Amino acid sequence: MEIREIRSDEFSLAWPIFRSVVAMGDSYAYRPDISFEEARALWATAPARTFIAFAEGQVVGCYLLRPNQPGLGDHVANAGYMVAREARGQGIGGLLCEHSMEVARQAGFLAMQFNFVVSSNEVAIRLWKKHGFEIVGRVPKVFRHSSLGLIDVFVMYRLL
Amino acid sequence: MEIREIRSDEFSLAWPIFRSVVAMGDSYAYRPDISFEEARALWATAPARTFIAFAEGQVVGCYLLRPNQPGLGDHVANAGYMVAREARGQGIGGLLCEHSMEVARQAGFLAMQFNFVVSSNEVAIRLWKKHGFEIVGRVPKVFRHSSLGLIDVFVMYRLL
Repeated sequence: MEIREIRSDEFSLAWPIFRSVVAMGDSYAYRPDISFEEARALWATAPARTFIAFAEGQVVGCYLLRPNQPGLGDHVANAGYMVAREARGQGIGGLLCEHSMEVARQAGFLAMQFNFVVSSNEVAIRLWKKHGFEIVGRVPKVFRHSSLGLIDVFVMYRLL
Repeated sequence: MEIREIRSDEFSLAWPIFRSVVAMGDSYAYRPDISFEEARALWATAPARTFIAFAEGQVVGCYLLRPNQPGLGDHVANAGYMVAREARGQGIGGLLCEHSMEVARQAGFLAMQFNFVVSSNEVAIRLWKKHGFEIVGRVPKVFRHSSLGLIDVFVMYRLL
């Protein structure tokens, strides 16, 4: 697998995965019918950076890396990961996470924070814990899950 | 005291307080030298709404109200409050908070979340608790306080 950063004008590489993950309405707060341009603005416009994972010429995953806050909070990174449905169960999420932490360290970030880990997403929570993240907050009923209704989200965090 | 919403092109009413609060570097993550246009984009461009408090013709405080997340998280409001230094200790922060909760309820929000309550800001934490917010998370060392260095922030939350 190769992971590389893409330019904003290459966001169409991420878009099929982005669109299908968001359309599920079970893991990200973005509107399920978000447009390409909205998605590109959020993920691939500075200071946000998008990285893509390729396996055998196919895009199998992507991630977002950015400062979690401006100014006096910009030493903490934020990231979001997406894996193509047909490529799940192969450890790609963990590889994306490790890659993002290394890029974040190189960029000078001191920690990484996830603000919105949906509490029903047990696979993700287990994975982030395995990669050193701990739950530092639980916010009640802040996500309208497409099938489960109003559910909690976790804030997760680790030093880099 | 009168509190009213301002239009984006009236943001200069909020700017003196905004600039002086942010310049302190002890309560908001915004760059202490943030520009007027950046501040206006964050606080007074839809879906963000700015409200101003006047007392005897003077601007004594302002607040931001917006959805804390897009799409499937937009039933939860986020707010930020600023009180002019010379007007502190008069209960204005609490009045702004109550006003914002009423506006949020009328706008259909079901809850309100603060993402970044600086742990050294004891006056604010006590005030939000008094107004029904509870601490639901503590994130380590994510704020570079101008005099205290890296310190924790709280995530606070209440149903409306």
